Amino acid sequence: MQNFTYQNPVRIHFGKGEISKLQDEISSKQRVLLTYGGGSIKKNGVYKQVMDALAGREVYEFSGIEPNPHFETLMQAVKIAQEKKIDFLLAVGGGSVVDGTKFIAAAIDFNGDPWDILTKPAPLKSAVPLGCVLTLPATGSEMNGGAVITKASTKDKLFFIDPLVFPKFAILDPETTFSLSPRQTANGITDAFVHVLEQYLTYPAAASIQDRFSEGILLTLIEEGEKVLKHPNDYEVRANIMWAATMALNGLIGAGVPQDWTTHMLGHEITALFGLDHGQTLAIVIPAVMKFQAHKKREKILQYAERVLNIHEQNPEKAIAKAIAKTREFFTMLGVKTYLNEYGINADAIPKIIVQLEKHGMTALGEHGNIDLIASAEILRLALNA
Amino acid sequence: MQNFTYQNPVRIHFGKGEISKLQDEISSKQRVLLTYGGGSIKKNGVYKQVMDALAGREVYEFSGIEPNPHFETLMQAVKIAQEKKIDFLLAVGGGSVVDGTKFIAAAIDFNGDPWDILTKPAPLKSAVPLGCVLTLPATGSEMNGGAVITKASTKDKLFFIDPLVFPKFAILDPETTFSLSPRQTANGITDAFVHVLEQYLTYPAAASIQDRFSEGILLTLIEEGEKVLKHPNDYEVRANIMWAATMALNGLIGAGVPQDWTTHMLGHEITALFGLDHGQTLAIVIPAVMKFQAHKKREKILQYAERVLNIHEQNPEKAIAKAIAKTREFFTMLGVKTYLNEYGINADAIPKIIVQLEKHGMTALGEHGNIDLIASAEILRLALNA
Repeated sequence: MQNFTYQNPVRIHFGKGEISKLQDEISSKQRVLLTYGGGSIKKNGVYKQVMDALAGREVYEFSGIEPNPHFETLMQAVKIAQEKKIDFLLAVGGGSVVDGTKFIAAAIDFNGDPWDILTKPAPLKSAVPLGCVLTLPATGSEMNGGAVITKASTKDKLFFIDPLVFPKFAILDPETTFSLSPRQTANGITDAFVHVLEQYLTYPAAASIQDRFSEGILLTLIEEGEKVLKHPNDYEVRANIMWAATMALNGLIGAGVPQDWTTHMLGHEITALFGLDHGQTLAIVIPAVMKFQAHKKREKILQYAERVLNIHEQNPEKAIAKAIAKTREFFTMLGVKTYLNEYGINADAIPKIIVQLEKHGMTALGEHGNIDLIASAEILRLALNA
Repeated sequence: MQNFTYQNPVRIHFGKGEISKLQDEISSKQRVLLTYGGGSIKKNGVYKQVMDALAGREVYEFSGIEPNPHFETLMQAVKIAQEKKIDFLLAVGGGSVVDGTKFIAAAIDFNGDPWDILTKPAPLKSAVPLGCVLTLPATGSEMNGGAVITKASTKDKLFFIDPLVFPKFAILDPETTFSLSPRQTANGITDAFVHVLEQYLTYPAAASIQDRFSEGILLTLIEEGEKVLKHPNDYEVRANIMWAATMALNGLIGAGVPQDWTTHMLGHEITALFGLDHGQTLAIVIPAVMKFQAHKKREKILQYAERVLNIHEQNPEKAIAKAIAKTREFFTMLGVKTYLNEYGINADAIPKIIVQLEKHGMTALGEHGNIDLIASAEILRLALNA
């Protein structure tokens, strides 16, 4: 096991009816900016639950935070927060709203060009406190200090991580996820699944707890993922998916082990350039990463094959091929296609993606730092055609 | 899954050499009371590492905190801390030292009889901040807000839980555990193993992540437990045991699921009356609890049999019997005996234990609250003779 420092101070309120805990979490003296997305929370009753719990508080609203939240949009919220002297941000929505709100929290008092928060990651000096009511299990943003932001004008999708933007609390009510579309649900499960794989499918680090926990999350996502599309209103299924997605990226399974974020980095460029859903890009890239890195990831892919996918195949090459195929089948079963050409993207896209990777300094990816631009191009070629 | 609130703010520094982080964790202005046990930390180099890291700070020492730390001993430390105006407590040792130091932290500013912290558990108003350097993986105290304290004069062994006594940080260096005796190592593994079982072997609560994580900790303790007695200086083995024991009782696997602390409550009385090691009492009681509650715990014992113990037996009664036998074999393999008579305790002990359970209000134990004094006596009878 590698040495590590781990701390996660987020207070989780999990379960039906927990949105009422906002009463205790946000004081009556706080000036709150409520941030949300396209307004689905007004249709599914979440907005009303939130406003009921916040009764008596000074609450301003900022809606319209889009998927892959835009710097340009968020800067409008920053201006409002500054004008209204907001001292608490409440994000209500999925990972994009939570991520966007973390950026707002960091930008309100930021000295300089706020885009530097993404491009010149230096520790923040301060951030306005935030909390969240999560309505889409996927990104893990509710229990970590990271955020991914897109500058629409330049198609840059970048991330920052800072302990100052850990949510003070996160409310996870599985009932709020009943109304998610099959596509949102599937993308969310895919995102969480790939988060685990990127902290697990590297090389053995003799980290038994981290491995077992990773396998436990993957098994849960497979078992519950198979149920949820047929039974979208099954509370227990939604609850297990929600808690699994949170545990997938709260730092725990990644503590003390090597990590490989190649898939997310390539996926970000594909979304920024071509507008694919985040989950779709991951389902495209990770099978190709597994194939390209099969030799270096050999032992962990074999462990994944046996413990998670129930593949009992003596020949290691065959076992690895089966593991890649079964991973792809899982995404396909969820309704997420796994090749670029299935989204109308062809080989012409590859040089465009490579240019962006270079621009963003993504030239030494992977747990060994050996995924240079040539390797990334090869991975993308492996992801081209079904 | 049941609703839950979960927060764990402890900062973990894990790995070899991490004791040097004390420099950053404790400011040069703090007045530190270093608490420890019988002095083994002076033989194995831990004391020197700690004092080197604390160079330049005002450090007082309190040694002699015994296993199952005594209220009477700890009150001496409270007096010293008050006199010296201590504003930070640093526990260096195993769970008893950490637990004892939590009590000291709570008692320093406590208004009233400090024994009330154990007998009339009401939320604390304040506690002196504490941190720890853990040298014995077992209790999980390094990452939770609980402590078990014994009043030697009356043989009362009681616990309290309060978020104010969460350690600010915990340093876990597996190398500090190389010098543990086989008995300490075995007791520690047993303690952690039973912590998991008490949060896992109840009734199904559709909590997939909690189940999988529990199973992952149990599998790790079995696999590494089989190695550690032969290879006490294997860093990776010690590291996995250490992290497993922390995860076994930091609140995570118990969030949202029923729990059954019968084994610990009966075990505490046995230790208080007869002086057995804590781990020994757990190895005695839990097989008897499993047997007595086999019907109510049926589904989870069968899940444990299959997923953890690799028992593939079609007949459920036989599977349960095998699971109990294999659990006993695991403790025995570690060198921990599993029947009262193997420690020279006979049936005369049972009424004495029952009197203490009644005195301490332990009359409705278990996940269903159905373990009354008669049931406890029956469990103890099942634990009597090999």
